[in-house]
Amino acid sequence: MGASLKDVAQLAGVSVKTVSNVVNNYPHVTPAMRERVQRAIDQLGYRPNLTARHLRKGRTGIIALAVPELGNPYFAELAGAVIDAAARHDYTVLLDHTAGLREKEVLVSHGFRAHVIDGLILSPIELETSDLLARPGDAPLVLLGEREYDAPYDHIAIDNVAAARTAVRHLSGLGRQRIAFLGARREMARQPAHLRLRGWREELAAAGLPHDETLVAATDGYGRWDGAAAMNALLDRGARPDAVFAYNDLMALGAMRALVERGLRVPQDVSVVGFDDVEEGRFSTIALTTVSPDKQSIARLAVERVVARLTGAPQLEPERIRPGYTLVARESTAPRTA
Amino acid sequence: MGASLKDVAQLAGVSVKTVSNVVNNYPHVTPAMRERVQRAIDQLGYRPNLTARHLRKGRTGIIALAVPELGNPYFAELAGAVIDAAARHDYTVLLDHTAGLREKEVLVSHGFRAHVIDGLILSPIELETSDLLARPGDAPLVLLGEREYDAPYDHIAIDNVAAARTAVRHLSGLGRQRIAFLGARREMARQPAHLRLRGWREELAAAGLPHDETLVAATDGYGRWDGAAAMNALLDRGARPDAVFAYNDLMALGAMRALVERGLRVPQDVSVVGFDDVEEGRFSTIALTTVSPDKQSIARLAVERVVARLTGAPQLEPERIRPGYTLVARESTAPRTA
Repeated sequence: MGASLKDVAQLAGVSVKTVSNVVNNYPHVTPAMRERVQRAIDQLGYRPNLTARHLRKGRTGIIALAVPELGNPYFAELAGAVIDAAARHDYTVLLDHTAGLREKEVLVSHGFRAHVIDGLILSPIELETSDLLARPGDAPLVLLGEREYDAPYDHIAIDNVAAARTAVRHLSGLGRQRIAFLGARREMARQPAHLRLRGWREELAAAGLPHDETLVAATDGYGRWDGAAAMNALLDRGARPDAVFAYNDLMALGAMRALVERGLRVPQDVSVVGFDDVEEGRFSTIALTTVSPDKQSIARLAVERVVARLTGAPQLEPERIRPGYTLVARESTAPRTA
Repeated sequence: MGASLKDVAQLAGVSVKTVSNVVNNYPHVTPAMRERVQRAIDQLGYRPNLTARHLRKGRTGIIALAVPELGNPYFAELAGAVIDAAARHDYTVLLDHTAGLREKEVLVSHGFRAHVIDGLILSPIELETSDLLARPGDAPLVLLGEREYDAPYDHIAIDNVAAARTAVRHLSGLGRQRIAFLGARREMARQPAHLRLRGWREELAAAGLPHDETLVAATDGYGRWDGAAAMNALLDRGARPDAVFAYNDLMALGAMRALVERGLRVPQDVSVVGFDDVEEGRFSTIALTTVSPDKQSIARLAVERVVARLTGAPQLEPERIRPGYTLVARESTAPRTA
């Protein structure tokens, strides 16, 4: 496939090392030398295949990160953290989004673009354990997110049941008694382990509050619009919640918008808690109370697991790693006034 | 570097085309055949270098997109649109963020990771024309965003002066007379073409409104926090605006938050207009009026220019392309009540 590094070095009359330095954009090359090497590169139409450092180990220096949706700021913020963490290990991130579709998640996890990536960090929605077990090759794969799998891969996710319980406990501690859950899946059979919903149920039981299933709103998606629609549906059917725990911040923000539109006061009439701690919740005109997963740790741990497997520890036992989380109380929750 | 496609085909006892089909994950391969080829691939440790399709043309099938910040939903939404547009041309997107730093923008535009990308779409902040003129190689580069350059590259951006004038005209049409601008750069010398600020000035003059420079707030960044801080600074120095035009939606949302915290009513006391039309502005408890650039067109045009240059039209004249925009009036702006 055309010219080699050596050809370039010969034509430019410099060492292969110097060409490699230019190609890798190392800072200690003089502009004149850079110019000279670049001329030879252009003349030969040379295209370096791999950076020298990764090349020696047969790597590309690229980790793929596949998320369901970039439009959700949680994933955008997480992607930013992964890019920064990867850069500290001299890796670049190839970002892909799957729209949360099983077909796309299979494609990504089974090695789509495998020729340019060394490892994969995947936050799946619909992927099944059987898909993971059928995965070809042995490129490192680290899973993120709520879904639980019985497959030999690292999985980094906060304890979603416990975190959801913390959110509901915050609401019951404020005297709230009719606590709704927004964001159940319509087809529960396809996702038995809906951990945040389970946390809601468990905590209501622990607090001695009845769990009235009319207070659970199923949704098709996980965006602002879905949160607003679910809130309206709950109110339309007369569920009369005095608090709402939403699957994520976007849905919580959509729900707040719907409540305000109907003349209900947040937090007095209905208190609202989200999940994710995206920046927009902090700056909302009614600042949002939320469960804040440690996104920096999630990103750092994911990259470290991939890099560890690429650099001498491929036989590492798959691990279930649980980063921390905190409840951040802001203006959208307040005590019930009788 | 190890085994070839041919070696794999030989060991598996199938055609090179079949191996290529498996490697590229094409759907019309039976599971048994996929298994058979995969065994040979694993046995030989074969690593495909390029997908067959791009390989024939010496390409990797990857376009890089470099944006200043993924945490800003405008860029996250734009990235989603670019990924979709690229997929329609069978390209994957390598996403990088530059933090808006000249050093990082130079690195990216001068061919960092050039070995894995066919072309680059860059939204620069601090990059200078001289940096672009010194760019080595001839990989397609398309520029996005507000900065204007005198360099031979495609540049896709809405008419920022005209769009800013539309926003200010909306406010003056509502009877607003003291219209502030949030988001000027502190070091104006480094960015003479601050187009949105220029649009603000021009439209105030056209409307016969005085442009009181105490109504211009400089900021260090372009986030929610910067908008809130700038708004507070304006109010602290007694500037008494009855309207605010912010550089972008994030700053507008931060400004609204600051206004509400100080007991001012939006839109009655102070009307607010943003720029970008990010989804969160639509769902804010006070829905945000904004200038909405046609993000889908920007993404589509950027990808099309890169692909056109890669497929037979490398000598295309560089073009300045101006996608459309609209003003979307929502709840954050209303007529002045005397």
